[in-house]
Amino acid sequence: MNYNNIETALLGFKYLAEGHKAGSFDNYLSLLTDDFIFYAPAGAFRGKNVGKQRAKEFYETITAAKADFVFSEPLRVTATGDTVVIEFTDEGTIMGFPYFNRIAASFDIKGGKIYGYREYFGDIDMDAMNKMQG
Amino acid sequence: MNYNNIETALLGFKYLAEGHKAGSFDNYLSLLTDDFIFYAPAGAFRGKNVGKQRAKEFYETITAAKADFVFSEPLRVTATGDTVVIEFTDEGTIMGFPYFNRIAASFDIKGGKIYGYREYFGDIDMDAMNKMQG
Repeated sequence: MNYNNIETALLGFKYLAEGHKAGSFDNYLSLLTDDFIFYAPAGAFRGKNVGKQRAKEFYETITAAKADFVFSEPLRVTATGDTVVIEFTDEGTIMGFPYFNRIAASFDIKGGKIYGYREYFGDIDMDAMNKMQG
Repeated sequence: MNYNNIETALLGFKYLAEGHKAGSFDNYLSLLTDDFIFYAPAGAFRGKNVGKQRAKEFYETITAAKADFVFSEPLRVTATGDTVVIEFTDEGTIMGFPYFNRIAASFDIKGGKIYGYREYFGDIDMDAMNKMQG
């Protein structure tokens, strides 16, 4: 088990949670490699996205969507090799609609930097998602 | 790292994949504890479900939905404590509609039995999901 990778993933998780409250994801972005690859589960960025610049655009969109999310503490953390998966819940409002989700966030990490990220949704409220996509 | 838990999770994963082709999840169900708890991300079983009997009903529903899924090999496997997370992709048709998903499957395991399961979707095709629920 690579405790450094777990620490980096938990730091990334903390910065993501703080970003949702502060309206800035700069701390999180500082952890990403330039060739960072991420997969978003839904919305305009659904699927594969390449590059730190693309991540910056993604988080600007989230900030613009007036998402008011509160992350739970990590409920489960598993790690093997470069990959660390954090399971947590996420509660709040987005564009004024109530929002709840169970999330699995999978980070690929090397040398204290996050080079990959995959997000998975565990509780899909079709009505809320249809409204958001309006 | 508990290799026995990883082996049990990979066996469960194999049985799930086979269940989708064979139309029977009996092998998978044989790995579950009676007090098995699972969280489904969508559909009639969305949210928390308690008991092996409830799992049996869930997989009967999947068989009835004429889901023709092919699981990829596990793409990433992480494990810590009782929990093993397998990331994979899933492709095929459900009720005749094409279907693709990235999935994170999180198993809680003790003594060669699965006592918890959480499924997360990484690629949410709203059109397909609306049709399925339609």
